[in-house]
Amino acid sequence: MKFRIVFAGFGVVAQGLTELLLEKQQMLKNSYGLEWQVVAVSDIHKGSVLDNNGIDMSELLSLTEKGQSLENCNAEVKGLSVLETIAKADANLLVEVTYTDVHTGKPAIDHIRAAFNKGWHVVTTNKGPLINYGQELINMAIKKNLGFGYEGVVMSGTPTIGLALRNLAGSTFTEIKGILNGTTNYILTEMEKGLDYPSALKQAQTLGYAEADPTADVEGWDALGKIIVMANLLMGVTVKPDTAYRKGITEIKAKDIEDAKANGKKWRLIARAEQKNDNVKISVAPELIPITDPLANVSGPTNALTLTFDTLGAITIVGPGAGKKETGYALLADILEINRLYNR
Amino acid sequence: MKFRIVFAGFGVVAQGLTELLLEKQQMLKNSYGLEWQVVAVSDIHKGSVLDNNGIDMSELLSLTEKGQSLENCNAEVKGLSVLETIAKADANLLVEVTYTDVHTGKPAIDHIRAAFNKGWHVVTTNKGPLINYGQELINMAIKKNLGFGYEGVVMSGTPTIGLALRNLAGSTFTEIKGILNGTTNYILTEMEKGLDYPSALKQAQTLGYAEADPTADVEGWDALGKIIVMANLLMGVTVKPDTAYRKGITEIKAKDIEDAKANGKKWRLIARAEQKNDNVKISVAPELIPITDPLANVSGPTNALTLTFDTLGAITIVGPGAGKKETGYALLADILEINRLYNR
Repeated sequence: MKFRIVFAGFGVVAQGLTELLLEKQQMLKNSYGLEWQVVAVSDIHKGSVLDNNGIDMSELLSLTEKGQSLENCNAEVKGLSVLETIAKADANLLVEVTYTDVHTGKPAIDHIRAAFNKGWHVVTTNKGPLINYGQELINMAIKKNLGFGYEGVVMSGTPTIGLALRNLAGSTFTEIKGILNGTTNYILTEMEKGLDYPSALKQAQTLGYAEADPTADVEGWDALGKIIVMANLLMGVTVKPDTAYRKGITEIKAKDIEDAKANGKKWRLIARAEQKNDNVKISVAPELIPITDPLANVSGPTNALTLTFDTLGAITIVGPGAGKKETGYALLADILEINRLYNR
Repeated sequence: MKFRIVFAGFGVVAQGLTELLLEKQQMLKNSYGLEWQVVAVSDIHKGSVLDNNGIDMSELLSLTEKGQSLENCNAEVKGLSVLETIAKADANLLVEVTYTDVHTGKPAIDHIRAAFNKGWHVVTTNKGPLINYGQELINMAIKKNLGFGYEGVVMSGTPTIGLALRNLAGSTFTEIKGILNGTTNYILTEMEKGLDYPSALKQAQTLGYAEADPTADVEGWDALGKIIVMANLLMGVTVKPDTAYRKGITEIKAKDIEDAKANGKKWRLIARAEQKNDNVKISVAPELIPITDPLANVSGPTNALTLTFDTLGAITIVGPGAGKKETGYALLADILEINRLYNR
């Protein structure tokens, strides 16, 4: 099928997807019958362009690389907001990659609703709308017979959401636990090599793993948002981030790391959702993990997820949790899945 | 959709699927719109029954448990071979779970071709037809627009084949490596606890992990068949088991295990397919794995697979590699995927 794409947001993840779409254009057509054309890109900082005859995405990448406005490219209409863009574009797929607000899901939620109302498929990597409006959006897509992909919300392109919902369909999940934040795992791994917390954090910032304000990562908000999305999808619970138990890694000392090692254990920031009777307990907190547990050997910015369920017992998947290409690929995998379902 | 099922073979895996279908009957209907009825079961040892009005599968499980012939149940027609059954049954899904011949793919290949020619979907856990006729069968299913599921061929219900082909679609794979045989991994893990090879093998036999003639497992044939299937699917190569490099675990001594431990390593039987330029190298052999590698911490009968590819780097999935319920679930997952694709 031919996707006519609108990008809401053109940050790192959107650029990662664009690079993959360009690099793999011929293969996607030959192996999957997937063709594409981008008709609009609207980014609050970088500018907004719309052309129903198609936009030259190599040129857009090049402008972005030079730090120039997207509006320097050749396009029919310029300067539209995302909602104005959705209203005017002749498209069938929204790539929603604007900024994340875990508390409100705005502005992404408005963009996704508008796209569904125009009869477009939607792919996103944004936790916000999933945390706050997950079931509404899923039901909206089903009702309108549209594709809705959000694999990149948890562990970037490493299969987690699709893995659980599709490959493990029909299973009943009793526990979801994982290392869902790469920044904190990198810091803990560096502390195992002898650094104290402030030095490890500084190193993570230097390498670009942690932001100048590292709160969302080190206080566990990012991991919490992800485990809430998984629990919502697999256990049917709705939880607001403010009401769940959340403890970050800021109080872990070098001595705690040493003591753990002496006892054959490691500290990991574990996000967990546990179903007991009709109750689901969600938490993010540092836990002591035996070194024989697959999660203990997940080092650096790598992530991992262990699912426990009736049909197989437990499985663990280990893979990248972030990155430009890795998260861009999550969107491509979602687009390929929509192509697979709707191109028959 | 409503599946009208024919079982070719009614061994442990078929029984595992049947138990899941019965246990989850209501949920499958409510959550996935999946309904089912078994119209025939043909097993070379247990007997053969066909009734286009449906067979009572609880009764069949009960007869099997008592070691009685399936033909003691109520059914229109009895005593047909699998091919005669396929010819006479009014069905739309073949569950192919007869015995495995990695060298010829017989008799499963004939059953699968016959089912496709009747316009039925097919699910199987049998390596034989995939090793020897994989691309032919895949193309046949595509041409006839039929579902063809074979998730259980590698690591039982743990997602591997679907994971690579669907969730990781559009990726280019350069290395596939894994612990794909639970029996040998159990033996190596027991040797790490101090047993020598003969004692560990005997223990595996007592627990039912290894057969009386353990050749297929300990000489690497089983793992080789699985890596050949993966390499065929992901790298497009066709290899006959006899021509690949294969070394089992029978020559590993207690001292080798100790020496490895002293060097921070573990012995694991690694199945591997490596793409270099246009050449794919396939092998099964014991390898020394650093304990920091996710594969080193895979213990007992658990299996694991590490895929290396362009879009994400590397991911590892760890989960059960065998078992009645676990392999039965692989078939259920395949059926749910066919339902998902063809029920729209």
